[in-house]
Amino acid sequence: MLTRCSNQKDGLLTDTTNTSQSDLDDAARAAEILMGHRESIDRLDAILVYTLGERFKHTQAVGQLKAEHDLPPSDPTREAKQIARLEDLAKRANLDPDFAKAFLNFIIQEVIRHHKKHQE
Amino acid sequence: MLTRCSNQKDGLLTDTTNTSQSDLDDAARAAEILMGHRESIDRLDAILVYTLGERFKHTQAVGQLKAEHDLPPSDPTREAKQIARLEDLAKRANLDPDFAKAFLNFIIQEVIRHHKKHQE
Repeated sequence: MLTRCSNQKDGLLTDTTNTSQSDLDDAARAAEILMGHRESIDRLDAILVYTLGERFKHTQAVGQLKAEHDLPPSDPTREAKQIARLEDLAKRANLDPDFAKAFLNFIIQEVIRHHKKHQE
Repeated sequence: MLTRCSNQKDGLLTDTTNTSQSDLDDAARAAEILMGHRESIDRLDAILVYTLGERFKHTQAVGQLKAEHDLPPSDPTREAKQIARLEDLAKRANLDPDFAKAFLNFIIQEVIRHHKKHQE
């Protein structure tokens, strides 16, 4: 990227193109901003992993409870409510609702895998 | 489920089988526990959705920064570090590391989709 610099030296206004230094500054600034975002992403990933760990603790307890009480593993009414709720949450969080639904489905597949493993 | 009850009435210890009432109590207790777990799952889903929204805000900023500075969209060194970090986090959070990796991959696919959309 080229940056135009106004150089007011000895009372004269000269227009110089200081490419290499400004490019370096620019790249260094970009690298710093990038690092900041990555640090945030890493912290958010930790939240996601621990939240998922907690969520699976509850779904495993639900699976055990259902097995003990001969309740059906799948509950379409509950699932429909969850999807509607998630769509609403996604809109509020500025997240693509289709991605949110795909995400819930991805987690539910893992929950089903846990339940099957539990039944074996 | 059958529950044996010891009934000590009139000084006599009699063994009765009160199926219907204890079954009802049992089912009511199970329903209450199930509801508690579902409430927790719903709250955790809200955390997940809002955290994902925040994460995409950062990945979108990274995508924009990379586009502005002609940086390559993919960074294998960063990605390898992320995977190693996630495996470690997953173990600490009692989460299946393979699921954690599949989860990261699922999110990264969405990030790539965003980046491509941004480039169009």
